Amino acid sequence: MKCAVISVGTELLMGQITDTNAVYISRQLNMLGIDVLYRYTVGDNDGRLREILGLAAEDCDLIITTGGLGPTEDDMTKETVSDFLGEKLVEDEEAKHILMEMQQARKHRFTTNNYKQYLLPEHATVFQTEIGTAPGFAVEKNGTTVICLPGPPYEMTEMFRRCVYPYLAKQQDSVIYYKVLRIFGKGESLVETKLMDLIDAQTDPTIATYAKMAECSVRVASKRRTLEEAKNAVEAMVRKIRERLGDNIYSEEDEDLVQVVGRKLIDRHITISCAESCTGGLFAGNLTDVPGISDVFERGIVTYTCRAKIEELGVREDTLERETAVSPEVARQMAEGLQKKTGSDVCVSVTGIAGPGGGTPEKPVGLIYIGCRYRGKTLVKKLLTPNFSREWNRKYAVLMMLDTVNRLIDGRPVMQENFTDPEGKDIPLE
Amino acid sequence: MKCAVISVGTELLMGQITDTNAVYISRQLNMLGIDVLYRYTVGDNDGRLREILGLAAEDCDLIITTGGLGPTEDDMTKETVSDFLGEKLVEDEEAKHILMEMQQARKHRFTTNNYKQYLLPEHATVFQTEIGTAPGFAVEKNGTTVICLPGPPYEMTEMFRRCVYPYLAKQQDSVIYYKVLRIFGKGESLVETKLMDLIDAQTDPTIATYAKMAECSVRVASKRRTLEEAKNAVEAMVRKIRERLGDNIYSEEDEDLVQVVGRKLIDRHITISCAESCTGGLFAGNLTDVPGISDVFERGIVTYTCRAKIEELGVREDTLERETAVSPEVARQMAEGLQKKTGSDVCVSVTGIAGPGGGTPEKPVGLIYIGCRYRGKTLVKKLLTPNFSREWNRKYAVLMMLDTVNRLIDGRPVMQENFTDPEGKDIPLE
Repeated sequence: MKCAVISVGTELLMGQITDTNAVYISRQLNMLGIDVLYRYTVGDNDGRLREILGLAAEDCDLIITTGGLGPTEDDMTKETVSDFLGEKLVEDEEAKHILMEMQQARKHRFTTNNYKQYLLPEHATVFQTEIGTAPGFAVEKNGTTVICLPGPPYEMTEMFRRCVYPYLAKQQDSVIYYKVLRIFGKGESLVETKLMDLIDAQTDPTIATYAKMAECSVRVASKRRTLEEAKNAVEAMVRKIRERLGDNIYSEEDEDLVQVVGRKLIDRHITISCAESCTGGLFAGNLTDVPGISDVFERGIVTYTCRAKIEELGVREDTLERETAVSPEVARQMAEGLQKKTGSDVCVSVTGIAGPGGGTPEKPVGLIYIGCRYRGKTLVKKLLTPNFSREWNRKYAVLMMLDTVNRLIDGRPVMQENFTDPEGKDIPLE
Repeated sequence: MKCAVISVGTELLMGQITDTNAVYISRQLNMLGIDVLYRYTVGDNDGRLREILGLAAEDCDLIITTGGLGPTEDDMTKETVSDFLGEKLVEDEEAKHILMEMQQARKHRFTTNNYKQYLLPEHATVFQTEIGTAPGFAVEKNGTTVICLPGPPYEMTEMFRRCVYPYLAKQQDSVIYYKVLRIFGKGESLVETKLMDLIDAQTDPTIATYAKMAECSVRVASKRRTLEEAKNAVEAMVRKIRERLGDNIYSEEDEDLVQVVGRKLIDRHITISCAESCTGGLFAGNLTDVPGISDVFERGIVTYTCRAKIEELGVREDTLERETAVSPEVARQMAEGLQKKTGSDVCVSVTGIAGPGGGTPEKPVGLIYIGCRYRGKTLVKKLLTPNFSREWNRKYAVLMMLDTVNRLIDGRPVMQENFTDPEGKDIPLE
């Protein structure tokens, strides 16, 4: 099955919003072994959508659209698709019923434009969830299946998961299986150089490397007749890659580092607290996105000011004066003060200059110190990020904090060489 | 000028990564008055990229590609585009020089695959920045300009800002001006109903509404001969919309609520601290993303456990036992304890059940209390989110905290009616 994904919405072409729907759908189709050949984005424009539908139908037997199913006037996907397929729009009694109940339950008024939403193609399979008011649908005509889904991501993903995935899963005859290895601490060029002979020799599984913000990943994919064959092929290749990249691979399941670390802490009942300066709560905010983390996450302190560092963590005033807030000694005192206060197993701290202002020649923007108290020892690590932006610096600091915690609780050595600063040396465990 | 944006990368079609580049480029082109007619996404596949280039060249006089310029083997955009345009690839001496210096400065090895990167089309205008090793370029041929840019977002955006925008700005003859009004506290249907007559009558400016997670926005756009004409038309329409939506509009510059609130706090020298339970540092993490916030952000405390609430904020143990941690009284004590501790002008607190677990019939997942101490009074606000997900609940809570702070420091009444729970009543100021 070959698929085209069409995202409809002038707001997409204007750059108002990011198209996360197309990404989600691509990933799901991939798991179903459905090749996505193209993705298109068009405005809320009948003529151009029709043109793209025609194009897509030439190469593909599955077309999925998102967006333009809402109650408002510029929403015209349903009308254009129905007309393209030669389908009449008719009132769908069930959709109408569900919609009215939903609005009632929310105590929302049933606005005039809501009525438009239960007009659906007469031969449609209707998809509806209790999230969002726009029903989706599938219509099969002359060998082409067109599936139309709503635009708001939380509505679309729920509908895909509960209605579309099962609908499509019935129809497949080959399977793609893939693994995505996530790597922290090595750049894309270096990773590819290490894997060059494997990449050169690839047929199936295929190997591809991708750069992400401060990270990189390797996708190993195989398309076979059965899931088992595909799985075996991928696993054999992953073993070879593992030998070359070692523990720079932090996940083989395409998980974020925070999920990996969070789950380990929960599974091993290791309690954690954090004291943040330059990241301003981002570490805590990320870590607490992991479901179940409340079992082990004890406390986070955002000590943005010197006063807060002194009062909350017992950082010494003379140290702050002598060494300034961005120094290895302050990172150490933050982690140690936090440990005294909370008694958490892991106490991680960070202090640095996120920018854009606040840098000096001696302490430039992007200079960051991470402290980590664990099992009676304190490790302090220095980073000097390439300072692409304030956002980058903060995210990178959070990743390095996570990597440091990840290695310490595994009993593995903390990286002595930074991705971005080969000279950034760790101050070893005391 | 009519433009097509082509994103190249199998990882995009596989759904490995989100295409933020196309969004960024769309927005920039929009500001330049260049219409984006289509966006396409294709894999790292010579034949399909060639097909899309042909299609795009039929309708568009500007084609921008991102991705596939890297040093690795699957990167073939440059080769395909050059071949499509009938251009030879030649060694570019300057690009080579810059590239080698860059790798040296970073103490990175100059890997064999880096050499590929300074081969460029012979009539290209070369774009290069010190971020990233892949040069971009523009080639004009038979009335079509093709611009190729690297895929990693931080490389691409820097190159666009510094090289591509100035390159394109010289060539325009009409201008689009638009404003995006950001709205919190009213759903999309309701907003559109209030604006229906304006939308029905629209020619230029055009009006369109968009739903976002827990928010909605209205875009007002005008395309005219001069920037001044377009601006005047947009401003006149915005005045009308403002009359209908009042202070639910929190920005007319498409800013995030956190930017609006952060800037007000900084400009007015109002200090702030926060105490978070269910949002786990997300409020602090978001707020400290605002550059310059260190002038007013005093402290954040993530009190995830009861013990932390007692020790850090002086929440009373008997209150926690009697009313549980998720209660209006605990939200109040958190805000008041924080104020005693920090003396900050605004002290905002949050406690709730983010899910997926932890709900009870009386206190379901999605129940959240926000406390805010300001000018000697404490306001407590109850929310009951529709509980789409843990992530949604946490984000929505942060938005409502920001909205509450925004209204209090403006001296405006805090919303008595919640977007998602018409019955959620505020406990009025004491």
